[in-house]
Amino acid sequence: MSKRTVGIVLFPDAEELDWAGPWEVFTMAAMGQELDVVTIAETSEPIRCAKGLRVLPDHTFDDAPALDVVLVPGGQGSRSEMNNPAMLGFLQRVAPGCTWVTSVCTGSVVLAKAGLAKGCRITTHWGYIDEIRGHAGDSEVVENIRYVRDGKLVTAAGVSAGIDMSLWLVGQMFSPEHARQTQRFMQYDPVPPYAGDV
Amino acid sequence: MSKRTVGIVLFPDAEELDWAGPWEVFTMAAMGQELDVVTIAETSEPIRCAKGLRVLPDHTFDDAPALDVVLVPGGQGSRSEMNNPAMLGFLQRVAPGCTWVTSVCTGSVVLAKAGLAKGCRITTHWGYIDEIRGHAGDSEVVENIRYVRDGKLVTAAGVSAGIDMSLWLVGQMFSPEHARQTQRFMQYDPVPPYAGDV
Repeated sequence: MSKRTVGIVLFPDAEELDWAGPWEVFTMAAMGQELDVVTIAETSEPIRCAKGLRVLPDHTFDDAPALDVVLVPGGQGSRSEMNNPAMLGFLQRVAPGCTWVTSVCTGSVVLAKAGLAKGCRITTHWGYIDEIRGHAGDSEVVENIRYVRDGKLVTAAGVSAGIDMSLWLVGQMFSPEHARQTQRFMQYDPVPPYAGDV
Repeated sequence: MSKRTVGIVLFPDAEELDWAGPWEVFTMAAMGQELDVVTIAETSEPIRCAKGLRVLPDHTFDDAPALDVVLVPGGQGSRSEMNNPAMLGFLQRVAPGCTWVTSVCTGSVVLAKAGLAKGCRITTHWGYIDEIRGHAGDSEVVENIRYVRDGKLVTAAGVSAGIDMSLWLVGQMFSPEHARQTQRFMQYDPVPPYAGDV
């Protein structure tokens, strides 16, 4: 199988773990495999994320490689990106060539605004379920679920749910065994320390 | 209570999720609280992490603010940092003023080499338990645990374990209720999709 590429889209005020969780999963899964993982943004300027982390993207929308997987994170900045013609145009251009079109948190609104979730079941962060229903056209917004797959569209719930979604995708792209090994190298045996309701 | 500061130490080939997980936890916990979270590195140059992500640090060792919490991630680069006098000197300088001195993954070796884990119980990534025993002096290296607290020293297991440790610390620094709320905003109800042994 030829080399595949995962493209993680960055934008100002993207939520850090929304993209950093999937970045870790895919780059860990890439060890010993034919897989590249790159970050892509509108320009090559440093991106200031939602909580202040500053990151340098690997590619711009204009020089991005062909992608097999595209991932759109959420965060405060998704409110601007859902109306950014450069972002929507990039997603519309790359999605047809992708095997998987994915999002984390409110990134699903950006995919919907790009017309990539028509008639599909999607999800988002628990706090934005109602808001996204106003933006998602004829998409069906489902809740209380870590991630939803509808054809080649896979949308995850809030922030940390992107880790679970990405591990599931590694299982689809390679094998469940490879996903388990990736999970083991990340020592992803989570034990939230203060479990229970708020 | 006056404003507190969490300092996350970065270095070349630091493992991305080792520090990005705690970054998300602490910055999410900081919303509405008197808490700053900053990244600190030896120089202000972009840091290239273990899997290729490039990040701009907020401070250098020379201009870092006073810290209440210091966190040292792991990753391939910890092998160099455990012998880097600038890193060890920085940690030795800030640790006495910190309420919590913490690490993720092989970051515990760096703390040990800085002399900050003498006679303490510590942990690391499951794959480096034996290796760290050779570097950890009179520390007791324990395994099969998400994180270990010994006095003000808290060391986490591999990569994703830093998220659990950081949530526990938020509970200690603020309250279990605030940690639960942070966890809820991160939607940290993890469901690893391909559970089970490799």
